[in-house]
Amino acid sequence: IIIKEQNDPFTGYGKNGFGDKIMLKEWIDAAAKRKKASLVLKNGSYADVFCGVVRKGDIAIENGRIVGIGNYDGEEEIDVSGKVVLPSFIDGHIHIESTQLSPEEFAHLTVPHGTGTIIADPHEITNVCGIQGTEYIAEASRNLPLDVVIQLPSCVPSTAFETSGCVIDGAETAEYLQREYIHGLAEMMNYPGVIYADPDTLQKLEAAIEKGERIDGHAPGLQGDLLNAYLCSGVATDHECVTPEECLEKISKGMYVHLRLGSSTNNIVNKFPAVNAATMRRFLLCTDDKHAVDLMERGHVDDILRLCVANGMDPMWAVTMCTLNPAECYNLKYKGAIAPFYHADIAVVDDLRNFTVRYVFKGGKLVAKDGEALFDTKRRYLPETVLHTVRLKRPLEPSDFVLRLKGDKAHTIGVMEGEVLTKDEVVSVRSENGDVVCENDVLKLAVVERHHGTGNIGLGLLKGIGLKGGAVGITVAHDSHNIILLGDNNADMAAAGNRLAEIGGGMAVCSHGHCDSVRLDIAGLMSSEDAPVHAANSAKLMEKVYALGVDRKYDAFLTLAFMSLAVIPEIKLTDMGLFDVRTFSFMDINA
Amino acid sequence: IIIKEQNDPFTGYGKNGFGDKIMLKEWIDAAAKRKKASLVLKNGSYADVFCGVVRKGDIAIENGRIVGIGNYDGEEEIDVSGKVVLPSFIDGHIHIESTQLSPEEFAHLTVPHGTGTIIADPHEITNVCGIQGTEYIAEASRNLPLDVVIQLPSCVPSTAFETSGCVIDGAETAEYLQREYIHGLAEMMNYPGVIYADPDTLQKLEAAIEKGERIDGHAPGLQGDLLNAYLCSGVATDHECVTPEECLEKISKGMYVHLRLGSSTNNIVNKFPAVNAATMRRFLLCTDDKHAVDLMERGHVDDILRLCVANGMDPMWAVTMCTLNPAECYNLKYKGAIAPFYHADIAVVDDLRNFTVRYVFKGGKLVAKDGEALFDTKRRYLPETVLHTVRLKRPLEPSDFVLRLKGDKAHTIGVMEGEVLTKDEVVSVRSENGDVVCENDVLKLAVVERHHGTGNIGLGLLKGIGLKGGAVGITVAHDSHNIILLGDNNADMAAAGNRLAEIGGGMAVCSHGHCDSVRLDIAGLMSSEDAPVHAANSAKLMEKVYALGVDRKYDAFLTLAFMSLAVIPEIKLTDMGLFDVRTFSFMDINA
Repeated sequence: IIIKEQNDPFTGYGKNGFGDKIMLKEWIDAAAKRKKASLVLKNGSYADVFCGVVRKGDIAIENGRIVGIGNYDGEEEIDVSGKVVLPSFIDGHIHIESTQLSPEEFAHLTVPHGTGTIIADPHEITNVCGIQGTEYIAEASRNLPLDVVIQLPSCVPSTAFETSGCVIDGAETAEYLQREYIHGLAEMMNYPGVIYADPDTLQKLEAAIEKGERIDGHAPGLQGDLLNAYLCSGVATDHECVTPEECLEKISKGMYVHLRLGSSTNNIVNKFPAVNAATMRRFLLCTDDKHAVDLMERGHVDDILRLCVANGMDPMWAVTMCTLNPAECYNLKYKGAIAPFYHADIAVVDDLRNFTVRYVFKGGKLVAKDGEALFDTKRRYLPETVLHTVRLKRPLEPSDFVLRLKGDKAHTIGVMEGEVLTKDEVVSVRSENGDVVCENDVLKLAVVERHHGTGNIGLGLLKGIGLKGGAVGITVAHDSHNIILLGDNNADMAAAGNRLAEIGGGMAVCSHGHCDSVRLDIAGLMSSEDAPVHAANSAKLMEKVYALGVDRKYDAFLTLAFMSLAVIPEIKLTDMGLFDVRTFSFMDINA
Repeated sequence: IIIKEQNDPFTGYGKNGFGDKIMLKEWIDAAAKRKKASLVLKNGSYADVFCGVVRKGDIAIENGRIVGIGNYDGEEEIDVSGKVVLPSFIDGHIHIESTQLSPEEFAHLTVPHGTGTIIADPHEITNVCGIQGTEYIAEASRNLPLDVVIQLPSCVPSTAFETSGCVIDGAETAEYLQREYIHGLAEMMNYPGVIYADPDTLQKLEAAIEKGERIDGHAPGLQGDLLNAYLCSGVATDHECVTPEECLEKISKGMYVHLRLGSSTNNIVNKFPAVNAATMRRFLLCTDDKHAVDLMERGHVDDILRLCVANGMDPMWAVTMCTLNPAECYNLKYKGAIAPFYHADIAVVDDLRNFTVRYVFKGGKLVAKDGEALFDTKRRYLPETVLHTVRLKRPLEPSDFVLRLKGDKAHTIGVMEGEVLTKDEVVSVRSENGDVVCENDVLKLAVVERHHGTGNIGLGLLKGIGLKGGAVGITVAHDSHNIILLGDNNADMAAAGNRLAEIGGGMAVCSHGHCDSVRLDIAGLMSSEDAPVHAANSAKLMEKVYALGVDRKYDAFLTLAFMSLAVIPEIKLTDMGLFDVRTFSFMDINA
């Protein structure tokens, strides 16, 4: 394994660096003013998340920790008058892979937005590369000025109804949970497996419970007795709530609920009625899936804070939901508050309305200023285990995409704006020469297995996105990340699939035989490029998609990426066929 | 070591019994109604501590855990209509020794009051018997229908200014923290040792931090920079706050604050201004020191709940402070709430005003009904290590108590009603034949070393309790538990001390040469008798004290027991002499 060198510019931050060494005497001496603190943030205000108020006071920092609040002088002083000192932000649930960036570049992009910690579920790359994918995220994240808390993916594959790159069973889960870099079991999205007490699923959960690990959940719409059954597995969080009533039932039954603002999920405000003085302590903020472009344009957790406050939430509640609350939920000791003994992971903002981040400190070191990272991430960790991951049985041919129906009514995947949920829509479809004709906004969707060269291809129909005269494809297709293709003609679909195989994974747009593409060289999921380069390439490619008539309210690639996610209702497509999430079984496309 | 037998009637509860075995399939099946739950509490209401409201719903219980809330049928059903189902109560900080009962009898007395868990600091017995005292509490508490969470005492002795039965230094602390029955480091009352960075004290704290253990605090009146310094040691709780402002500063700086209602501490209501919707989550309830008689007459945590609600606190806030909040603070996993997967540690009460406890369940088993324990505690664990612990150099003589002053002004310990704090009061004192004359409510106080036969005797004066014509004495004298004697004549003081030595520890009252006494055979701190017997004996003895003119607003023995506690301001007496807690040094009695 090629590990970043010892003299790596990031060494000195993070898990093994400043702030994690116990230096009681130094801290106590500085707090008691027997010696000057190394750094003092002078003359500012700070968020007291324990009392829910903003207070005045200097913040004294010594050897990685906050040691004093009050009136302090420091060896070094930074004037923060007029600004507010906050604990740096915690993203309560994120798949780094969805940013399409390497962990290094992710940190470079998000730390200047005030992010200090992320709860990272490397679910996507683990479904492609197995535990070596998890390990890659852990290694690439070491010594970044960002705490990457890595959970072990619980659903590899998510369901038995698709072909993933790897399988991690109950026994392997128990084994991997012992690894030093693993903190908790990531979202248990196989809720039917839990509810019906599938032995392999229960083995995973038992192993996590025995080790005392936090178990994240994922249970859209689950309620009543079935929610009780799901919770009896030790699952303790949910980030899939749709309504305030769902939030309240889940909180009432002991769950922490994440309010999520990702690239294709923005339904936070409708859940505000569930947030009150009593329930507030059980809410967390998260992005889950957020693309690099959105991170660049809108920010990270700071973006969620702005949204919450703009929509009337008490700013201190919003701050608490991305600091103290996730620290408690995920047992991040002495993180998430401005208080003595707490890690000096700090974001200084102009105010609690725009949350413009001026300074970011990690373990007491200044790591970003005025939106610019003060560390570089040029060197990347790129082991062979996560490269060259697209393997087809043979090149695709147009005939692979012929879809023969029995009649003229078909179940179609109906796309919903701002949701990863779909609707089962029965539509009238015309066929010619034993193949569906794509018209009236009904398109062909295909999922091509790409890990083991099985030759599996699942075919279905999708409605409501507006594409005409071409095909788009991507190797990001939750959660097994086969090739997913959408088009109105078989030739362009085949061409797009073949282009993706040629470049070792990525995104492609083909129209009348001409293809454009962007590489996602890391597991077919992430680019090793810098964020601006990758974002520019992606934006250029997206324009080619919109040129094919796709409605601009959709991010075609991201929407596409969720159309094979067989754990989110109502219907999805995998490499094995059309899947009904409501009954957790394959369904006939013929209606 | 004599351990209770395997067929002990309690086996099946507690740490190693029901509720701690992971039985996911059984729980899930019962929650999903594929099989009937073993027990259902039907038709009642329950406290939802996550939302701060009371809801309607049946509570289904299976194999030690709550598995469902809603409409459930059970193999066994208990009708709780009109009642409220609560998580059983957690006493956030208690010294069992202060009840003067064995752990077995303590459980027998408190479980019917709804107590499910106590955070126990065996500070007193460890100061007498060393780690064997801690171990005794652990062994005696095994398999009780009560979770006794045992912390390692951090201050053995509390200060270097007294002679304790044992010393546990930093290296030993690090070693003992590894023991299976230890959960956390108990109250660090040596706050000057922390603030001035005493190396041995820091070694103890570092060991606890490294093991990730909760560290309890004890810092009456500490504020500002010195509080910052104290907190920089990892201390995270305080149960000594006096004012609401002190509570708020401590919470603001990250501490959990215990509201305490013990036998001689009842100043909770004055702190209510510090409790609000934001800070509520950081408050806990505790008794700290509460005598058997008070437990019998007023109850345990239920007594605190009644007090809080009677004084206007939201009942759900009060309940949350003794359920969810301490569970979070002390990392008691899946305890402290009525929710699926949570331990079925339950108290069913008539209402949220009187908190009359009807049923108590431990791990889903009915263990108390209508105030009666449904288990017996006749067999006690009584190892030789905690018996016969009073060792004098030689019998005491009246001349041991001669107090010669330089002039006619002396520093006197001023007793305060309802507080363990004292005031330094300078009074005029008359002497005859080179000895103080006890008059005008000024009495002689003596602390006689009783562990190693050193012959140490500390002498002082105490004001404001009303005793005449005799002496009282007790082998409970915080925190080193030497013999403490109070009297107005030397002969009775000597007689009382000698009686205590004869009976192996306890309480004694002597007047004109006649002595009455009650044995505290376990370490000179606790009685192996049943609570009613011990309470009756104690009450009878107390009447003898009141017959000597002691003001009935004081429990003379309990008040006396705190007069040597050299960590609580302002002045105290140890076997080494009069001690000024404000300066943490010995002081001259001559004013």
